[in-house]
Amino acid sequence: MRRLDSRAAGFEAAFANLLAAGAPDDLEVQAPVQAILSAVREHGDEALLDCTRRFDGWIPAGADDLEIPRTRLDAAVAAITPAQRSALQAAAGRVRAYHQRQRQESWQYTEADGSVLGQRVTPLDRVGVYVPGGKAAYPSSVLMNVIPAKVAGVAEIIMVSPTPGGIENPLVLAAAGIAGADRVFRIGGAQAVAALAYGTATVPAVDKIVGPGNRYVAAAKRQVFGTVGIDMIAGPSEVVIVADGSAPADWLAYDLFAQAEHDEQARSILLCPDAAYLDRVAERMAALLPGLERHAIVEAALRQHGALILTRDLVEAATLASDLAPEHLELAVADPQALLPHIRHAGAIFLGAYSPEAIGDYCAGPNHVLPTARTARFSSPLGVYDFQKRSSLIGLSAAGAAALAPLAAQLARGEGLSAHARSAECRLEQS
Amino acid sequence: MRRLDSRAAGFEAAFANLLAAGAPDDLEVQAPVQAILSAVREHGDEALLDCTRRFDGWIPAGADDLEIPRTRLDAAVAAITPAQRSALQAAAGRVRAYHQRQRQESWQYTEADGSVLGQRVTPLDRVGVYVPGGKAAYPSSVLMNVIPAKVAGVAEIIMVSPTPGGIENPLVLAAAGIAGADRVFRIGGAQAVAALAYGTATVPAVDKIVGPGNRYVAAAKRQVFGTVGIDMIAGPSEVVIVADGSAPADWLAYDLFAQAEHDEQARSILLCPDAAYLDRVAERMAALLPGLERHAIVEAALRQHGALILTRDLVEAATLASDLAPEHLELAVADPQALLPHIRHAGAIFLGAYSPEAIGDYCAGPNHVLPTARTARFSSPLGVYDFQKRSSLIGLSAAGAAALAPLAAQLARGEGLSAHARSAECRLEQS
Repeated sequence: MRRLDSRAAGFEAAFANLLAAGAPDDLEVQAPVQAILSAVREHGDEALLDCTRRFDGWIPAGADDLEIPRTRLDAAVAAITPAQRSALQAAAGRVRAYHQRQRQESWQYTEADGSVLGQRVTPLDRVGVYVPGGKAAYPSSVLMNVIPAKVAGVAEIIMVSPTPGGIENPLVLAAAGIAGADRVFRIGGAQAVAALAYGTATVPAVDKIVGPGNRYVAAAKRQVFGTVGIDMIAGPSEVVIVADGSAPADWLAYDLFAQAEHDEQARSILLCPDAAYLDRVAERMAALLPGLERHAIVEAALRQHGALILTRDLVEAATLASDLAPEHLELAVADPQALLPHIRHAGAIFLGAYSPEAIGDYCAGPNHVLPTARTARFSSPLGVYDFQKRSSLIGLSAAGAAALAPLAAQLARGEGLSAHARSAECRLEQS
Repeated sequence: MRRLDSRAAGFEAAFANLLAAGAPDDLEVQAPVQAILSAVREHGDEALLDCTRRFDGWIPAGADDLEIPRTRLDAAVAAITPAQRSALQAAAGRVRAYHQRQRQESWQYTEADGSVLGQRVTPLDRVGVYVPGGKAAYPSSVLMNVIPAKVAGVAEIIMVSPTPGGIENPLVLAAAGIAGADRVFRIGGAQAVAALAYGTATVPAVDKIVGPGNRYVAAAKRQVFGTVGIDMIAGPSEVVIVADGSAPADWLAYDLFAQAEHDEQARSILLCPDAAYLDRVAERMAALLPGLERHAIVEAALRQHGALILTRDLVEAATLASDLAPEHLELAVADPQALLPHIRHAGAIFLGAYSPEAIGDYCAGPNHVLPTARTARFSSPLGVYDFQKRSSLIGLSAAGAAALAPLAAQLARGEGLSAHARSAECRLEQS
């Protein structure tokens, strides 16, 4: 794992490199993805079946066979262990409780002349949730994507998840049942995105597609954006930890491991002004690494993308962390509130050493779908607001129209739009 | 202008056609746009100067010459007529007042075990605003894009606007001065989007790019999405009017004209259950059309994309309008509140005949940057929320961590992520 020192020559370049590595790479697969999108758009279910046979390695009996009926979801809920079931239910309850506070309400106000202005908030009609299959099939992601849409009041939630080799994941299906997905299709990749965006005879077209996926899924989402809404283009997962040395070194070692076990592209970065503590964490990581189930992945991720960074002080550590705009930021310090003013950008901020990212990933309540690859500079965790939309309300009184029409006409003529001017002014002439 | 009847055979197909025509067409220019993005990314100012010479038809003296200094903005504010200046200032004041109600505040709550959960809202650091030049250079768009960013608290707003032939638009510069743009560059097209996304020696990189543009600009925004945030891909402008026949026919004729004068792609649609009223509006349009300054554009837009639609009743008119998910929806009826429950989708809803879109375009207060081409199904007017972002806050107490760690560990093991499980569980072991 690389060690950096903020006082060393060349630090800025090395640090900038940690950032730059996160740029999206889905542009490279634009051409094959475009071909799949066109095929599904033109040939519907036929193309969807063909892609499923080719890419997912199983042979659906027909288009109907792509849907997993509600009874199979209920059966999955019944089939998992009681401990798993109650953990999923408890997590769903906490996620629901947090997200209920995110609901936005309509508002309006009346001006002195009787004109009414406002903003109306309504849920989306139908939403598609993409859930990756295969090695990264996460039931927790089902909860995190479906529940905010439910809380927003979305009328119909369509979940898609590929079943490589035709093998269903009972925990994923149980999570879909518990979270309340309305319909579930076992399709994936760019073809699933296309089916959701354009609709086929079997898969209904949705208004927005959310959920993480590989770069084919990301490229497909980018290309259908505009036809439907999308959430964000997800990159590799990251954790940045700011530590003051007050937490047991083992805790941070496991937090860095937890991030790194996702895949070889995951990034685990620790910033701390205490060199001896960094040594201790490094030692504990070396000692604990061999005991990890996924130690090969962890080792590769840490070697390629991990960093222990010595800083001048805690404020510099916090400032550097904020510049990284990380997906997850742990403030493993005695007084996290004191550092908060130095944090401008982060997807989720974990306050204090009793708040490991791993608990946030599953059941603290906030969403685990977070902006990656520095996009926390401009985007937000997935939330209820992603499933609500706003309409402006403009209800002018006769007096309001009379007061504003000359203003509007003046500005419209300045733009050469005289029909706009007349449209405003005619409200003055007749009444 | 075409006439449709909701009771006629073939209506559904004809109506669906009104919708389908709005699909985004920027995918066709992906390749040339990709070349421009790469050139600016690799060669910075040099590529920017080259593109400006080639596409905007003027020769900058050097990279510094691309910036319009603050003094020229102030000079523009002084140079326009007092009527124009006070109209811009009054419009800016109303837009600011409305948008101040959109600011979102941070919140948090404490659970029984002392754990704190919340959502922190902060402004973006730096935002780029694209303002089209040439025939669609609209000072009102400057106000509508810059003011919400200012209200959100964005520290630096970079405006770009091309000056074809090197000619500056004094009203656009004055609007930039009045709205409070921090820096203004006279660049446009895909090259301006690239400069804002990647930064050059002269143009600073921003975190998000907003504002309408032609299909090169739209394609460029789509491609840089992820590196920076973007607002939306704007399509042709639309108005849909639901009328009960209570408003003077001239008013609606001008409202339909106002939309159609934007360009040949603009869509003006009137829905009404009263055939005689539709006849009257058609008559008045025929009579008034020749007197319009932009009658050729209006005539072309109405012929290609306009429609007068006879409906069974007002509720059907409202329902069909909602299915169109229009950018602008005028409810030119005596009781607009009665129809509101039937409207699920619209960018802006104008209540009653005294609320023409034209006043909303300039000075009612709500934003005129609205979702087009049916995207109101899933997106919202440009607003302060587009310039704010959220971070989740998770501060668990020792008791909170102890309660949640077993839950998280159970779910993590179900996903094969045992380092996640250990990261949660180690909080139980030591303390």
